[in-house]
Amino acid sequence: MIVIVKKSTAPAAVEALSNQLRTFGVDVHLSQGSVHTVLGLVGDTSKLDIDQLKTLECVEDVKRIQEPFKNANRKFHPLDTAIKVGKNIIGGGTVTVIAGPCSVESEEQIIEVAQKVKASGAKLLRGGAFKPRTSPYAFQGLREEGLRLLSLAKKATGLPIVTEIMDIAQLELFADVDVIQVGARNMQNFELLKQLGRTRQPILLKRGLANTYQELLMSAEYIMASGNENVILCERGIRTFETYTRNTLDVSAVPVLKKLSHLPVIVDPSHAIGVAEFIPPLALASLAAGADGLMVEVHNNPACAKCDGMQSLTPVQFDELMKKVAKLSAAII
Amino acid sequence: MIVIVKKSTAPAAVEALSNQLRTFGVDVHLSQGSVHTVLGLVGDTSKLDIDQLKTLECVEDVKRIQEPFKNANRKFHPLDTAIKVGKNIIGGGTVTVIAGPCSVESEEQIIEVAQKVKASGAKLLRGGAFKPRTSPYAFQGLREEGLRLLSLAKKATGLPIVTEIMDIAQLELFADVDVIQVGARNMQNFELLKQLGRTRQPILLKRGLANTYQELLMSAEYIMASGNENVILCERGIRTFETYTRNTLDVSAVPVLKKLSHLPVIVDPSHAIGVAEFIPPLALASLAAGADGLMVEVHNNPACAKCDGMQSLTPVQFDELMKKVAKLSAAII
Amino acid sequence: MIVIVKKSTAPAAVEALSNQLRTFGVDVHLSQGSVHTVLGLVGDTSKLDIDQLKTLECVEDVKRIQEPFKNANRKFHPLDTAIKVGKNIIGGGTVTVIAGPCSVESEEQIIEVAQKVKASGAKLLRGGAFKPRTSPYAFQGLREEGLRLLSLAKKATGLPIVTEIMDIAQLELFADVDVIQVGARNMQNFELLKQLGRTRQPILLKRGLANTYQELLMSAEYIMASGNENVILCERGIRTFETYTRNTLDVSAVPVLKKLSHLPVIVDPSHAIGVAEFIPPLALASLAAGADGLMVEVHNNPACAKCDGMQSLTPVQFDELMKKVAKLSAAII
Amino acid sequence: MIVIVKKSTAPAAVEALSNQLRTFGVDVHLSQGSVHTVLGLVGDTSKLDIDQLKTLECVEDVKRIQEPFKNANRKFHPLDTAIKVGKNIIGGGTVTVIAGPCSVESEEQIIEVAQKVKASGAKLLRGGAFKPRTSPYAFQGLREEGLRLLSLAKKATGLPIVTEIMDIAQLELFADVDVIQVGARNMQNFELLKQLGRTRQPILLKRGLANTYQELLMSAEYIMASGNENVILCERGIRTFETYTRNTLDVSAVPVLKKLSHLPVIVDPSHAIGVAEFIPPLALASLAAGADGLMVEVHNNPACAKCDGMQSLTPVQFDELMKKVAKLSAAII
Repeated sequence: MIVIVKKSTAPAAVEALSNQLRTFGVDVHLSQGSVHTVLGLVGDTSKLDIDQLKTLECVEDVKRIQEPFKNANRKFHPLDTAIKVGKNIIGGGTVTVIAGPCSVESEEQIIEVAQKVKASGAKLLRGGAFKPRTSPYAFQGLREEGLRLLSLAKKATGLPIVTEIMDIAQLELFADVDVIQVGARNMQNFELLKQLGRTRQPILLKRGLANTYQELLMSAEYIMASGNENVILCERGIRTFETYTRNTLDVSAVPVLKKLSHLPVIVDPSHAIGVAEFIPPLALASLAAGADGLMVEVHNNPACAKCDGMQSLTPVQFDELMKKVAKLSAAII
Repeated sequence: MIVIVKKSTAPAAVEALSNQLRTFGVDVHLSQGSVHTVLGLVGDTSKLDIDQLKTLECVEDVKRIQEPFKNANRKFHPLDTAIKVGKNIIGGGTVTVIAGPCSVESEEQIIEVAQKVKASGAKLLRGGAFKPRTSPYAFQGLREEGLRLLSLAKKATGLPIVTEIMDIAQLELFADVDVIQVGARNMQNFELLKQLGRTRQPILLKRGLANTYQELLMSAEYIMASGNENVILCERGIRTFETYTRNTLDVSAVPVLKKLSHLPVIVDPSHAIGVAEFIPPLALASLAAGADGLMVEVHNNPACAKCDGMQSLTPVQFDELMKKVAKLSAAII
Repeated sequence: MIVIVKKSTAPAAVEALSNQLRTFGVDVHLSQGSVHTVLGLVGDTSKLDIDQLKTLECVEDVKRIQEPFKNANRKFHPLDTAIKVGKNIIGGGTVTVIAGPCSVESEEQIIEVAQKVKASGAKLLRGGAFKPRTSPYAFQGLREEGLRLLSLAKKATGLPIVTEIMDIAQLELFADVDVIQVGARNMQNFELLKQLGRTRQPILLKRGLANTYQELLMSAEYIMASGNENVILCERGIRTFETYTRNTLDVSAVPVLKKLSHLPVIVDPSHAIGVAEFIPPLALASLAAGADGLMVEVHNNPACAKCDGMQSLTPVQFDELMKKVAKLSAAII
Repeated sequence: MIVIVKKSTAPAAVEALSNQLRTFGVDVHLSQGSVHTVLGLVGDTSKLDIDQLKTLECVEDVKRIQEPFKNANRKFHPLDTAIKVGKNIIGGGTVTVIAGPCSVESEEQIIEVAQKVKASGAKLLRGGAFKPRTSPYAFQGLREEGLRLLSLAKKATGLPIVTEIMDIAQLELFADVDVIQVGARNMQNFELLKQLGRTRQPILLKRGLANTYQELLMSAEYIMASGNENVILCERGIRTFETYTRNTLDVSAVPVLKKLSHLPVIVDPSHAIGVAEFIPPLALASLAAGADGLMVEVHNNPACAKCDGMQSLTPVQFDELMKKVAKLSAAII
């Protein structure tokens, strides 16, 4: 950690500051510039609060040198983490496609979609039971009943299931869920993250609409620091000034997150762009950038979907996409 | 609601679409342009899902004309809502200043700050007991003990208290809290909003880092639709590309929200800018823009604050600010 | 165009407004809703100023239905435009890679890089002579001398050259330049765009840091409306809240721009991400999303580059990238 | 300047790097941490290119300690700069209001508006002759004729005039213009800035839609480094995800720019919000935040304005605003 001292600070004050810092158990190296004095702090600086240091009278700025996440950091875990879900492995050089409808709507619907996406090569089934909707007047999901229908679809097809949790109180209902999804709006619901850290179920953690790579990794760190190392990161588009698309897919997140962290990184192109016809090019782009998998919305009848129909592929469109995914994956290995 | 039909659609398909729409109980007015056919839907369109309509083969675009929020909408409640908190009124032409430390740290600290901000003219005491922190390794607040200390400060000074809830499970601990704060990161924690709608305690709802005015009002609508009309909106800075400040205060939110809604609107300049020396100009700017109040961080010793010390005023600085607030308020009435 | 009339407007005022609109030569279709009256304007609405209409006393909102760009619009030119540059074709199903250093620095440097990128498969040579730099104290390019050295490199290798113009006054120096680049900061330098519309040289138009797809297409329209139809669009990253990368590559721009327009779309991953090691994954992602080509910075000695060395590939790294480009292109045809 | 060396770098390589850096005439202080080695560079580091340093094999990161702008920097010019325009002083504790129409449309229009805004207390007249418009099909301004009409209005009222330049070639036409405006889209048109640095006319430099405070100050530096110290900074709204308003006024820019720089800072609330009814609250907020002045659009008949009518005040509305400005200014001195 680097502490930059204000220009006009008296040498005695610099000395006092250095001594104060030493009480935290760090060594302090002073570097006297022509304009600024800089203190280099050496040792375990984790007990020092960067914001608090900045408030000190004689401090101009403080810069941290090491990333504040440990468990999620590739520097300390150089090898890729691969997460076992049923008979599948997410991460570690594999490409896993998760597919299914935005919302579970009925037994027929979810089983039909599950069978079709399985036939096309999907390895996990997604489907929303608890639905976060901007409007209180919009369809809120089938909730417990939705979870029950997902279990039926799992039994019928053998596909492990991925579905979103919205509140800690729902956790006990998620025993049969293979991957628990934390939605973008809950990425910094820290109480929820801590609880999920106490389970051992894999967590699919979506990046928030306006959250940085580091914040996403810090949220993963919340889960991991509580004991659950099975975290899958998911880029799903960020909010920018561009309004033509629902969100803006930040494809750079894939190589950057994979450099910073050993965790698997998948992409949800459906929420990123919000328009079905653009999903295939973004799905392929994500894999070309190195993503470990995709999460794609597929609905047997998008025009009648209870939510997000506009961004759902039909089973036929999904099947075409999967053929391209296979060709691309073969080419870039 | 306006439905724009695709260019090449056959008249029979337009007719079929119109008939389908009529089954939802709306009238359909057809307007034939040289390039596009436009259907104007008249009647109660709340059952129509705009996203679903957009997925229909022959539909180019759908535009909603009315705002999707009802309870929070000034069109249906032209008069300002004023919310009673203890002996104070928030909204309705008053200016209310809420002040206190980021975190409750000890009995001495919170009582001392409470007494000082009261002496300077603050009407409510703020203080964090449950603290949302980006890092799991940072101070997470005194939690239950923090709430107990806030109650002591309330008893000692008579100031009503404002503090943040992070999860539904904490709600029963908030019985003595006068205003329950929903933080920016929880603005779209819909399960929490629904529960808060079942209490009658005033809710201070902070705008999310990347949420639009309409999304903020829809979150207020979640609370109000569940029965609690005591919602105070709070602008606290949005996330932009500018990194010199912690966030970017969107001062336009004040007049715009007050036009769209009858709810009181206050501003938190401390989180918006994140640097103590810039808080007074932003506080004054917010009031000049028409805000119903301010929420300001004050700490008896910012350099030792357990969080956000950098953005806390000292009691002396707060007192100076309050004198300027009084002068400004007198001038702009 | 759709005009939404304010709620309380008297029928006589609606009638007066309709008559006023008819004087612009459009038909007006009235649709009376339960809350709002909507006027559908049919005919050539290009003479109507949407912002001006919005200021009328009785108008609540105005919505345009057709895109305001004509020459660049795929609706009126369904086939891809392919632009001939020397013996190369940009667009129309080809993949063209443009490569070279950020700045031209010396005859040896530019010729060496040109020979190497040509050997690896690049079809055009890029190199900056006039350099837009944030700081007036930074290297501003070799200017005229830079153009002369680019011509030497062109003669030596046969590669057509691409270089940036910063001001109209420089245009006469660009006679031997094959593709004139307009940088992101000049995307809305409308006087420059108009002048470039009077040449017939291909123009590579970069998207501005915070410009929408539609604004980019309107800037292309400036060039095309002045008579020059040879416009190549270039996505090079937008500015968002994320600071880990230099900019945020908006890969969705590729399929969206190609849907809205018939013009070729290329991607500059070097400026988008700003860090050499992340350029290959972004380059591949751009092609997988359907880009017609790439523009990549290559420097024989990045650590000594006069600008942007951090985001330059070495010739060896570029050669590796080109092999992957070839494999990917073969797989996705 | 601080250079952070990569973890695994051999001591010999660190020594070699230090020696290389010393050849630039700076002293190098080595600080050996438990994980990282940090080099503190002392002396004149202006010849070192931060981006180039970052590309070196063994360098993890480089952090600059001093701001890269000198002429615009308050550290080197502690007193406020006040700029004389006719008999007026902009900056240095005064509040100056500039008003007038978006575009000059006719002799009658500009003279009538000039007389009215003067009567209400405006000190300078604004009016666009060369108009940057997103669409090539929109009204582009009266150009030379517009400048002539502005001169007539100046003669008739004595008000100095402010108008925008779009290209260097227009500069000779601006001899009678008192303040030359550089629009947001040209904030980084560096060739234009350099030329304007060779005049001695005051320059009103608008912040670009997505430019940081530092970039704005670097653009001011371009003008000042070329010899013209008469630069007025103007905040006019930035582009964010919020679409309800035209742009988002960044009111924090006022106190921050005034801290970083000695130059006057004014605010244009008209372009920031784009809707007439919200201009007065934003104008007052800007002054409460410490702005040295305002630039406000006023049109005698907004509904018929050739551009931006939606965001123009009528002379009556402007007069009301000026009364509030006077009251506020008196209260906050």
